Amino acid sequence: MAKAIPSRSEDYSLWYNELVKKAGLAENSPVRGCMVIKPYGFAIWEKMQQALDQMFKDTGHENAYFPLFIPKSFLSKEADHVEGFAKECAVVTHYRLKNDENGKGLIVDPDAKLEEELIVRPTSETVIWDAYKNWIQSYRDLPLKINQWANVVRWELRTRLFLRTAEFLWQEGHTAHATEQEAVEETEQMLNVYADFAKNYMAVPVVKGVKTPSERFAGAVDTYCIEAMMQDKKALQAGTSHFLGQNFAKAFDVKYASKEGKDEFVWGTSWGVSTRLMGALIMAHSDDEGLVLPPKLAPIQVVIVPIYKTDEELAKITEVVNGISSDLKSKGISVKFDNRDTHKPGWKFAEYELKGVPARIAIGPRDLENGTVEIARRDTKEKSTHKLEDTAAYISNLLEEMQASIYKKAVNFRKENTYEANSYDEFKELVEKGFVYAHWDGTDETEEKIKTETKATIRCIPFDQKKEEGECIYSGKPSSGRVLFAKAY
Amino acid sequence: MAKAIPSRSEDYSLWYNELVKKAGLAENSPVRGCMVIKPYGFAIWEKMQQALDQMFKDTGHENAYFPLFIPKSFLSKEADHVEGFAKECAVVTHYRLKNDENGKGLIVDPDAKLEEELIVRPTSETVIWDAYKNWIQSYRDLPLKINQWANVVRWELRTRLFLRTAEFLWQEGHTAHATEQEAVEETEQMLNVYADFAKNYMAVPVVKGVKTPSERFAGAVDTYCIEAMMQDKKALQAGTSHFLGQNFAKAFDVKYASKEGKDEFVWGTSWGVSTRLMGALIMAHSDDEGLVLPPKLAPIQVVIVPIYKTDEELAKITEVVNGISSDLKSKGISVKFDNRDTHKPGWKFAEYELKGVPARIAIGPRDLENGTVEIARRDTKEKSTHKLEDTAAYISNLLEEMQASIYKKAVNFRKENTYEANSYDEFKELVEKGFVYAHWDGTDETEEKIKTETKATIRCIPFDQKKEEGECIYSGKPSSGRVLFAKAY
Repeated sequence: MAKAIPSRSEDYSLWYNELVKKAGLAENSPVRGCMVIKPYGFAIWEKMQQALDQMFKDTGHENAYFPLFIPKSFLSKEADHVEGFAKECAVVTHYRLKNDENGKGLIVDPDAKLEEELIVRPTSETVIWDAYKNWIQSYRDLPLKINQWANVVRWELRTRLFLRTAEFLWQEGHTAHATEQEAVEETEQMLNVYADFAKNYMAVPVVKGVKTPSERFAGAVDTYCIEAMMQDKKALQAGTSHFLGQNFAKAFDVKYASKEGKDEFVWGTSWGVSTRLMGALIMAHSDDEGLVLPPKLAPIQVVIVPIYKTDEELAKITEVVNGISSDLKSKGISVKFDNRDTHKPGWKFAEYELKGVPARIAIGPRDLENGTVEIARRDTKEKSTHKLEDTAAYISNLLEEMQASIYKKAVNFRKENTYEANSYDEFKELVEKGFVYAHWDGTDETEEKIKTETKATIRCIPFDQKKEEGECIYSGKPSSGRVLFAKAY
Repeated sequence: MAKAIPSRSEDYSLWYNELVKKAGLAENSPVRGCMVIKPYGFAIWEKMQQALDQMFKDTGHENAYFPLFIPKSFLSKEADHVEGFAKECAVVTHYRLKNDENGKGLIVDPDAKLEEELIVRPTSETVIWDAYKNWIQSYRDLPLKINQWANVVRWELRTRLFLRTAEFLWQEGHTAHATEQEAVEETEQMLNVYADFAKNYMAVPVVKGVKTPSERFAGAVDTYCIEAMMQDKKALQAGTSHFLGQNFAKAFDVKYASKEGKDEFVWGTSWGVSTRLMGALIMAHSDDEGLVLPPKLAPIQVVIVPIYKTDEELAKITEVVNGISSDLKSKGISVKFDNRDTHKPGWKFAEYELKGVPARIAIGPRDLENGTVEIARRDTKEKSTHKLEDTAAYISNLLEEMQASIYKKAVNFRKENTYEANSYDEFKELVEKGFVYAHWDGTDETEEKIKTETKATIRCIPFDQKKEEGECIYSGKPSSGRVLFAKAY
């Protein structure tokens, strides 16, 4: 039998941790807060990367690579930025080790102290805007639309695999534009790219909106975000896109000569998603048997398990499987034939359920006789028998139907667990149960008090907010529309 | 006019540096020794990555990701490894900055000192073998064949863009096997993958061989390498593959239960290529006008430049170009139509020569009349006129022919600059002119003395070394075959 994981209802948090480990996605490393992304987890991340990278290129972005290290002084150049990022970070102070003269082993060489400390990038605005100063001279150099895939480090005290780790992998887009309008449009465009990716690949519906001032990225004028609901009804911020105004342009003196020959500061954006998306993907769909992966992100879309007793049976099955495999591959579907003789079919079934392989084909001697196969889908666990010759066509439709169905299930789940609250009492009750739309007076104070008292935060002011006169659930002051509250990761 | 670069004969080193910068490949960053890889340079690197990644997967490897940081104590676990890598490295000693109470700005918080310093990985054997200890229990877990794409840091004093930088990008494969033979075969296989990649994608011929003991990777039993000749006739080590024996298995106590139930140490390999390959690619083929890129690694394979005076002419040309572009794209060829009105055709011609775009199509009003286009190839700069309807077929053949021709040119160049020396006097003369095959007595002392006196090093003991009795050029002692000497990057 494959190793069992706890159920969600028993202990959601433990279920997640065990699932991540037992499905071979990631594990903790001996370096505090840093994870090892294991091959199966990394294969999913690669699929995410490929899809996102193509979407970035299709919207006119190019990839580049900037240094891992940021001189300490750079962080101080943008006033808000330093407040947000200069605190918990990995600081490189020396560039050499040596053998201790007193035999204490390897020690830091005190003679190799850096004049200026280097910070392992928590995000790259500063080092990138420093480069942009030289790259941008005239309006002909704009827009400049660059993305970087990189590792970043933020020293976190309480870490959880994928959701919050000291080192994580991400992409960070950094663009510069001639006009405010163009930069705002870029910020919106990239949030839409993220939302489309979440919907079409991850099968996760998201709420798009603007963060409140207190939740803004340090150095941004506005932070847009996408918020997703997990199965424990908590929110997870899955991506952010920042309109930076001219803040970084001013901090790093990045100007361009306009067509009219005037020197103007450029307008900036930045936007990112990270390996946190892995956490969202896992928590949105998986069940007590293991992962449920939307077919578009599944490293193995179909697994074929032979049921046999003799080598002769296996040989006959293999012949049939080769035909099915090549039919599936010709349709661009990834297939694994698990013919290991070290494990029983039942063990394999459980293993691939744990790993979230969308479709499983089982073939035994009776199937050979009847010219059939048994096909099981991972999400609903339904099984059905099909004619051998229909297999590829059926699987191809099934994967599409599963992609849509997993998304629909998540949409319904969110719908069933989303509420409107019209009083603070009602709010306190409902916010334990899911997303709550409620009126807010627009002040930091109220936001903070609600957070302290209920642990719920304003996830965003939704883009599709309806104009609706109302009273703040906390202060009773006037409000012109509901914002989205939830407990969050 | 596009910016000119110095000629190779004038100053080869300056030619390289200026070419890297002016073609938009990379530049120095404000962080000492760290480079910024610019979009055009990164696009080439991405093409390399894609090809290599596919070759790794085709040979049964999976990608994963391990932590950026290595606990200091890990480095000491393998005795040779620590000698090689614990010296010049970036050391993280603190995890927080704070505002100085005396108003001196941002300072390292002395209260946030790490108990054990962390090293920014110079290579990942230690942290990976520490993980393998838990991943490997039985022969069923073997072979374990993992690759990682990552950034690494080695504190270099004298840096050059791509060739030697403090931070660089690379891939590092790390495999574990049940038997010595299998690990040796893996080491060889991966060196062959690198050699094939160099030949078939980079159009760079390489010599495959074994490093002498003094040049071995720290912790390896044997280091295999590929060595390429640059246009200044110096050698560049383009990739290495290490047979680690049981060294890391013993250092990290990685054992497996064999089929017979016995506990055995596993056998290891590691292998890597880095952004240094970019330097090799640039220096192997480029000329005084700029980059020469083999078509398989060119981000833009074909550029189309319109020659026009009026908007009407441009409109007619554009119509024709759209047809050509879609024909080319349907053949999987990447095309750029540069219809900017901010630059003249002559400027564009020079610009795309600088950037090494393999094929250039020019179309003017006379071409429209005659139903022709002018096609120029970057490597030989030959121009020819073709019928419009033949364009896509011609270009498709041309790109293949260029890929082969660039390789052939490099092979011939190496042949013309490779010698055999039979005395030390002859050696000293010839080694200034290229690769030299000569007899060596097999001792570290002789190797070191030749290096000190001539600045030439033994690049490798070639795999295809002929058995040939001879006398060491330096000591006169007996030798059974020639080794490859050269000055090197």
